[in-house]
Amino acid sequence: MLVVQKFGGTSVGTLERVRAVAQRVLDRQRSGDQVVVVVSAMAGETNRLIALANGLHALGQDRAQTSGSDSKGWVAPVKRDDPDFEREYSQLVSTGEKVSAALLAMAIQDLGGRAVSLIGHQLGLVTSGSFTNARIVSIDAANIRRQVEAGTIVVCAGFQGLDEAGNVTTLGRGGSDTSAVALAAAIRADSCEILTDVDGVFTTDPRIVPRARKLARISHEEMLELASLGTKVLQIRAVEFAKKFNVPVHVRSSLHLEEGTHIVPETPDMEAVLVAGVALDRDEAKITLTNCPDVPGTIAEVFTALGERGVVVDMIIQNAGRSGFTDMTFTVPQADLERTMSTIEGLALAQAEGVSVIADAKIAKISIVGVGMRTHAGVAARAFTVLAEEQINIQMVSTSEIKVSIVVDEKYGELALRALHAGFKLGE
Amino acid sequence: MLVVQKFGGTSVGTLERVRAVAQRVLDRQRSGDQVVVVVSAMAGETNRLIALANGLHALGQDRAQTSGSDSKGWVAPVKRDDPDFEREYSQLVSTGEKVSAALLAMAIQDLGGRAVSLIGHQLGLVTSGSFTNARIVSIDAANIRRQVEAGTIVVCAGFQGLDEAGNVTTLGRGGSDTSAVALAAAIRADSCEILTDVDGVFTTDPRIVPRARKLARISHEEMLELASLGTKVLQIRAVEFAKKFNVPVHVRSSLHLEEGTHIVPETPDMEAVLVAGVALDRDEAKITLTNCPDVPGTIAEVFTALGERGVVVDMIIQNAGRSGFTDMTFTVPQADLERTMSTIEGLALAQAEGVSVIADAKIAKISIVGVGMRTHAGVAARAFTVLAEEQINIQMVSTSEIKVSIVVDEKYGELALRALHAGFKLGE
Repeated sequence: MLVVQKFGGTSVGTLERVRAVAQRVLDRQRSGDQVVVVVSAMAGETNRLIALANGLHALGQDRAQTSGSDSKGWVAPVKRDDPDFEREYSQLVSTGEKVSAALLAMAIQDLGGRAVSLIGHQLGLVTSGSFTNARIVSIDAANIRRQVEAGTIVVCAGFQGLDEAGNVTTLGRGGSDTSAVALAAAIRADSCEILTDVDGVFTTDPRIVPRARKLARISHEEMLELASLGTKVLQIRAVEFAKKFNVPVHVRSSLHLEEGTHIVPETPDMEAVLVAGVALDRDEAKITLTNCPDVPGTIAEVFTALGERGVVVDMIIQNAGRSGFTDMTFTVPQADLERTMSTIEGLALAQAEGVSVIADAKIAKISIVGVGMRTHAGVAARAFTVLAEEQINIQMVSTSEIKVSIVVDEKYGELALRALHAGFKLGE
Repeated sequence: MLVVQKFGGTSVGTLERVRAVAQRVLDRQRSGDQVVVVVSAMAGETNRLIALANGLHALGQDRAQTSGSDSKGWVAPVKRDDPDFEREYSQLVSTGEKVSAALLAMAIQDLGGRAVSLIGHQLGLVTSGSFTNARIVSIDAANIRRQVEAGTIVVCAGFQGLDEAGNVTTLGRGGSDTSAVALAAAIRADSCEILTDVDGVFTTDPRIVPRARKLARISHEEMLELASLGTKVLQIRAVEFAKKFNVPVHVRSSLHLEEGTHIVPETPDMEAVLVAGVALDRDEAKITLTNCPDVPGTIAEVFTALGERGVVVDMIIQNAGRSGFTDMTFTVPQADLERTMSTIEGLALAQAEGVSVIADAKIAKISIVGVGMRTHAGVAARAFTVLAEEQINIQMVSTSEIKVSIVVDEKYGELALRALHAGFKLGE
């Protein structure tokens, strides 16, 4: 069979690990499979490159600050979302994967195998959109196919492509997962293995719930919900690609050979399982606006302004309060809290009489995910019962087709997760 | 005018220096010139990348040594001149210049300029030959020209190109000089500036002879002789390119704006200057074979064997001694001395009765270079007189059209250099 194996930065973080990966890949080939490898940069390398760019930029700012303005008067403040800058940034940070790809190919050769690394134009991966958060539009896999069919192990630099003008582009954080799944789709691989430092996808975080159980398989839809919720085993775009192009993905450990979790299309029998997993997210913050005038456009004003500042809002709840007024609560990533507050304080709404704006970063969001919810009522009700038995107060609830999310006080987050994991019998 | 400026690894060795280079380049553009920049990797970066490759290889050897042979029996010793390995090696080490090119483009942008870095396929530099010591065969400069004419500063990654199959290739040590001159030829630049940590080309090494004088100009032929002789300001292939394509090269300091040395085609008035410079080379060793049978083919046997082992022989002297026998002396790089001796000891000649082989690494070679020698006799004679006055014994002499090389005992090397520098009035 033809398999794509993707190894993350930790798996190639030292020369010893690069060699171990080379051995594993070679063993796989010797077992009779054709192997295409996708690698991330060595752990720490991408950060080193980013630090160079930031260090350079900081030099400019220091100088501007100490000298006031340059004698020639043309030291412009750098716009970080300048496309020219982003082009160079991608050119810079993409070198990390080029290095690890070449090293892995060498290591395979050292062990007696045949290997070639592919980067940039050699990959045939064409993107569009921005330089630093590019989308894959096409893959010309002829080169990869030819090499693989000649018995060579092909090592692809992850995270990168070229746009149609030939500029180097990058796929955003975790982009190597997306590279792997997209390449697997392009070469019609029988499997795309994501080799990582965990054993697979669990019913919940095993560090918090020791009885968490590794799932043998999970649907794309469930994985999409879990990937967006702190179960950081796989980039969400990679799951979307896998779903769209029907690529069988196998998340497994890079440290041993045991089976991990297969991410598969939904099948009817999956609905027999009510809940696939529960996830905890402690990285959100809650903002409450009370006593807003209940007139059309109030919500639109807030979320348009936040959208323009690039803040991604997660949960939104609006309740009519006393007549003519409304309360509104929503959550944003904690990292965006400051930006969110300054945006809201700049709105006319926030200045209106009686309106108060309250931020609370001490929250935890627990999400219950499962395709079985589509056909089974009562998941939310059972969750509320479980939490009530533990005396945990519910602050917010939002539901989607296959997910129920509940916000509680941060200090009850882990307790709630354990209770729900047990309540839905996920450890069994 | 259109100028190519090449900055070496020391000039971009820190972020502060990258910024200083950016400022210099931008000042040049603002003075009204169009600028194309060629950069080396940041000082130390290429060595870091080579250390990664060597470290990986050493892991394989350690394992092979400690475990005898691998249980599967297929751990082959790595052939370092394996093309597959060399391909990956070039892919790896060429990332250093990609990083510095992107950083320099960013730094120019930070200072308010427009810049773009070009790497790999974006450069249009096509090579042939080996992966790690490739030769430039063509340059498609359309992309560079278009960018420059749009007012953008183009920053090219030096040292690298692509072969016709699209593999990354590198041009060998110091290859960025060659990149710069070749690109200057391709875009018909008015000047190719090599910016370095010395002020230009001197009549001799200023660290040894304080009265050494910077030359305002020097011919390609003289520079070729000096470049091959320890005056390491410019890679010899770069000078050959400059000569072949008539590229005006200007070697100057990256630290200040003073004029350096212009490398120019020979003009008649240059012959009025007898000697352009004297150079000292302490990196050679001398091998003497005495009492060789004086039959045809003796010399051929020795030098054919050395050529096959990749040893580059510099000076060769043969003297007939007593009837039917001959003595032969030649020099090789000290780094190749061991290989040279083992090669000679393996020849039938070395086993012949009476033949002795003597190696001497304690020698110094002084070379006197100048196109004026073509029309003026007596340079060798004056050199011998100068050395005799200092009581320095001459061990070997060889002459070419514009060069006289003299081998002396190593301990007299600096004294000889100073005496010849004064004797030919080079400090005046």
